[in-house]
Amino acid sequence: MFKEYQHLRIPGPTPIAPEVQRSMDRTILGHRSGEFSKIFGDSIEKAKRIFQTEQNVFVVASSGTGALEMAVANLVEPEDKVLVVVTGVFGGRFVKIAKAYKADVMEVKTEYGLAADPEQIKSVLKQNPDIKAVFATHCETSTGVVNPIKDIAQVVKESQAIFVVDSVSALVGMDLKMDEWGVDITVTASHKALGLPPGLALIAVSDKAWKVIEQHQGPRFYWDLVSYKANAEKNTTPFTGPVSLVFGLAKSIELIENEGLEEGFKRHFILRDMVRKAATALGLELFVKDDNAASCTVTAIKGDKRFDVEELRKVLSKDYKIIAAGGQADMKGKMFRIGHMGYTHPMDMLTTIAGLEMALKQIGLEIELGKGIKAAEEVWANAKNIG
Amino acid sequence: MFKEYQHLRIPGPTPIAPEVQRSMDRTILGHRSGEFSKIFGDSIEKAKRIFQTEQNVFVVASSGTGALEMAVANLVEPEDKVLVVVTGVFGGRFVKIAKAYKADVMEVKTEYGLAADPEQIKSVLKQNPDIKAVFATHCETSTGVVNPIKDIAQVVKESQAIFVVDSVSALVGMDLKMDEWGVDITVTASHKALGLPPGLALIAVSDKAWKVIEQHQGPRFYWDLVSYKANAEKNTTPFTGPVSLVFGLAKSIELIENEGLEEGFKRHFILRDMVRKAATALGLELFVKDDNAASCTVTAIKGDKRFDVEELRKVLSKDYKIIAAGGQADMKGKMFRIGHMGYTHPMDMLTTIAGLEMALKQIGLEIELGKGIKAAEEVWANAKNIG
Repeated sequence: MFKEYQHLRIPGPTPIAPEVQRSMDRTILGHRSGEFSKIFGDSIEKAKRIFQTEQNVFVVASSGTGALEMAVANLVEPEDKVLVVVTGVFGGRFVKIAKAYKADVMEVKTEYGLAADPEQIKSVLKQNPDIKAVFATHCETSTGVVNPIKDIAQVVKESQAIFVVDSVSALVGMDLKMDEWGVDITVTASHKALGLPPGLALIAVSDKAWKVIEQHQGPRFYWDLVSYKANAEKNTTPFTGPVSLVFGLAKSIELIENEGLEEGFKRHFILRDMVRKAATALGLELFVKDDNAASCTVTAIKGDKRFDVEELRKVLSKDYKIIAAGGQADMKGKMFRIGHMGYTHPMDMLTTIAGLEMALKQIGLEIELGKGIKAAEEVWANAKNIG
Repeated sequence: MFKEYQHLRIPGPTPIAPEVQRSMDRTILGHRSGEFSKIFGDSIEKAKRIFQTEQNVFVVASSGTGALEMAVANLVEPEDKVLVVVTGVFGGRFVKIAKAYKADVMEVKTEYGLAADPEQIKSVLKQNPDIKAVFATHCETSTGVVNPIKDIAQVVKESQAIFVVDSVSALVGMDLKMDEWGVDITVTASHKALGLPPGLALIAVSDKAWKVIEQHQGPRFYWDLVSYKANAEKNTTPFTGPVSLVFGLAKSIELIENEGLEEGFKRHFILRDMVRKAATALGLELFVKDDNAASCTVTAIKGDKRFDVEELRKVLSKDYKIIAAGGQADMKGKMFRIGHMGYTHPMDMLTTIAGLEMALKQIGLEIELGKGIKAAEEVWANAKNIG
């Protein structure tokens, strides 16, 4: 009966709004047809507003990682010195990509669970004025850390470096004022806070970055931003665009704008606090201690001696239909993660926490049923000024 | 963002499983095509098992009320004496239909919130051996009462009367052994525990009832069971059948059989107890006091001096996305009702109860957040033998 019934609480793919699902369910169109070009043009025009930029936003048929590589492929030549801000697995991915492009990679690394320190980045940039690009992760999906992108941008702006931000699991869930803050390249993907299936990435580029990209000689074809720019002016893509995802993108942004970007940020903030307070009330330990460093889109909760995290995840999934993520890489078995971005209502957090209480009890923890829910409901009630 | 987001907790229509939704989304077929007849034949064959009967089950394109009228139209002639068991609005509907067919209607009525007493029915039947048919509601949707159909069937069996059961909001959610108990006509509808959209009703008829129906002279055309019987033998319907709902019916019964009828009854029983214990823990009063008379598919909760039921329902819907039903007829404003049948997981009850706690707090009741959830989780944990 409940084979497909689930509460998808991984940090992407995320649940899809029925309006968005239906929008993708329409008759497919040719990717060069006038009818599709119109929808495409509308979508990328709208996308500017969620990127908070006046620049074009380009659509790429790829996962988020593809668009991260796109940023690297258009900036980095062998032996170029680049700085990567590493606060987890996805910071590490930038390192891997930059190394694949033979860059001379410097890293500013923090202990996992802590956010990057802009002062440290400032000092590395001062000592290395030849750094060509700085790569940072907005929300580090693997730990639930949010990096202070505004402050890092401020620091990078004073250098020649191009500032590239992986906002894959953050954009729309947390504020990112691309133009105002001075981010040069922003990357996001469809299956996170945009609430679409995977397969579409978005990337926007500043004037400062274009100057470098236009001179860039490195090998690239599918990832060549110059061809995306030329084609975007004709409301199309250089290669076959992800047509049905573009239908969904238009609808998704419509829903986001109906809610209002700021209202959406507030909602994500409440979702985060509901999970954090509930976990603490249930006697669990948060991976990110500092509220200021805690992402509004994903929360990592530590395992402890009392239970096996992987067993908890199995029980959550099988008996309570809550699909939570585990830890990545070294963190496997040491944490579980709850995604709370995109088409996620505070009611979904209550559902998730109720399931979590039951599952903890089931695997033998001595917890008081209802205690997590009470904490989460209080967060929400306070935000609503009731009670 | 959340315009279509909702937790539909009225006593029908009920949520639809994604598998069922997709099954109805296939290419439409002609209602007389061989391809459709095959699906239709399979569906009505499967339907016998959920009716727990060897008799044919007939598909009618109508709401539940249509099929209730069908039962009356095939049995009742002017001045026929019939007995209607009235425990709420839907018992009352049988009275109205029977009167529309000019029957001489007797009623056995209980105070709303109480189940019918088989002994009382027995005594009326003894005093009126000319009663042609007895009509009873299995689950009285308006109050959440379940009537003791097995015991009433036992009593009616001793008379000449045909026993007609409206199991619209009960079948599949609660046990009804049509053949074993001796129910003569069972009626149900698609949008209740079957988890389909409205528009399809099902009706099955015993040999005892056929003898009456085949002699019946009363006017009927669309409702003529004799023509449904003749057509069912050819795997079709006398008039255009609800083709896409039949696709859904096949899939719905497949899901029900995958779970197992008995397992499904147990699940509905747990859902009921979760709501009842939670409501009580939150200081609310149940409309049906006696657990033995409480339906496993819908629960009515009384309003009291502290709050306006209609305000509660508005807040539940607007802020917590829980769509609850109000009271019907005289009971409007005096209760709200929560449906828990069909594609409803215990997690959905936790979601509903969490929303209820928040809404009660919001409208000013002094309740302890988490207390309802605790009670409901304990019911489920006990049923699962954990903790």
